[in-house]
Amino acid sequence: MRGKFITLEGCDGCGKSTQIEMLKSSLASRNARFVFTREPGGTEISERIREIISSPAYTDMDMYTELLLYAAARRQHSVYINKQLDEGKLVFCDRFTHSTIAYQGYGRGVDREVIDFCNKIALGDLKIDLTLFFDLSPEDAFKRKGGVDKSDRMECENFDFYTRVYNGYKVMASDKSVVTIDAKASATAVHESVLAVLEDRGIL
Amino acid sequence: MRGKFITLEGCDGCGKSTQIEMLKSSLASRNARFVFTREPGGTEISERIREIISSPAYTDMDMYTELLLYAAARRQHSVYINKQLDEGKLVFCDRFTHSTIAYQGYGRGVDREVIDFCNKIALGDLKIDLTLFFDLSPEDAFKRKGGVDKSDRMECENFDFYTRVYNGYKVMASDKSVVTIDAKASATAVHESVLAVLEDRGIL
Repeated sequence: MRGKFITLEGCDGCGKSTQIEMLKSSLASRNARFVFTREPGGTEISERIREIISSPAYTDMDMYTELLLYAAARRQHSVYINKQLDEGKLVFCDRFTHSTIAYQGYGRGVDREVIDFCNKIALGDLKIDLTLFFDLSPEDAFKRKGGVDKSDRMECENFDFYTRVYNGYKVMASDKSVVTIDAKASATAVHESVLAVLEDRGIL
Repeated sequence: MRGKFITLEGCDGCGKSTQIEMLKSSLASRNARFVFTREPGGTEISERIREIISSPAYTDMDMYTELLLYAAARRQHSVYINKQLDEGKLVFCDRFTHSTIAYQGYGRGVDREVIDFCNKIALGDLKIDLTLFFDLSPEDAFKRKGGVDKSDRMECENFDFYTRVYNGYKVMASDKSVVTIDAKASATAVHESVLAVLEDRGIL
């Protein structure tokens, strides 16, 4: 039986990384067959592309160059994800298409039609089964992170940018394939919510 | 006055590199304001992308990943080319959109609609003024090159691939924006043909 593809979304600082570690432990203790991966990245080629996207040196990177690089990384990643799903594994991905719509679309103002076309090329026949949106406002996220990681170009954006990204996520969260998780709660409480959703959807 | 954008196309081994060196000398002696650039490449970001595309290690690169990487490199390059044209320079580019249609389209079988969309994103409002197609069959090109450069992934393709690429170029050569140059002639004769075309089109 083909596995399920679950994407994990939210603004920087929303606590995804902590949740991923907790989820890995819970899945292992339940003997689930799973892999965790991330975007941009997940394959050797995609990680090479990630280096270019993240490099703080490239302040002159055009927003369409950025979009096409994300799409290239995603295409190679989708081939890998499809193989894992065919082997019956649960695939959890830290960021995927919703991040592009939120960051490049709502954040930078890239035309949505162009984003959708790039995602269509990148995904082929790959489909997301479930998206978990870790809902934390930029105000709370910045407080939690305690500052900006200046070694990452994407993190050097200003507060208005992150507000637009967050508002984009809120719009997408109304879609029935997206489940919103209140990320202001304690890490343990958020983890319980995540497990409850996965059980409710028949994934666990 | 805005400059002109001229692209140089043809199969590997068609003698473009020699022609580019001869053309640089002739342009310099006529005091023309010009730049030569190449694809994929031409900007720091695009050259980084070129390294990934060319790496012989990535034999598993999906054809759409490759297409999107070319498009990303081209987008960043187009911004640079537009600036040079705005400064009134002649811009000569070793390979451009016709290469994508020939190699990815005719060569690999990537859907033409997808290629056209990627080129549209990559070019924005940039337009090619003239394309010179150096016409040399794969048979003659392989003879001239004396073998394949195995350090370049794109050159490790088989003869059938290059025949499809060449046939693609022949189809595109019927467009009135493309001028075919007989590349079987001597380097000096080919160079004379190039200069004659540039003069005829009011570029020199």
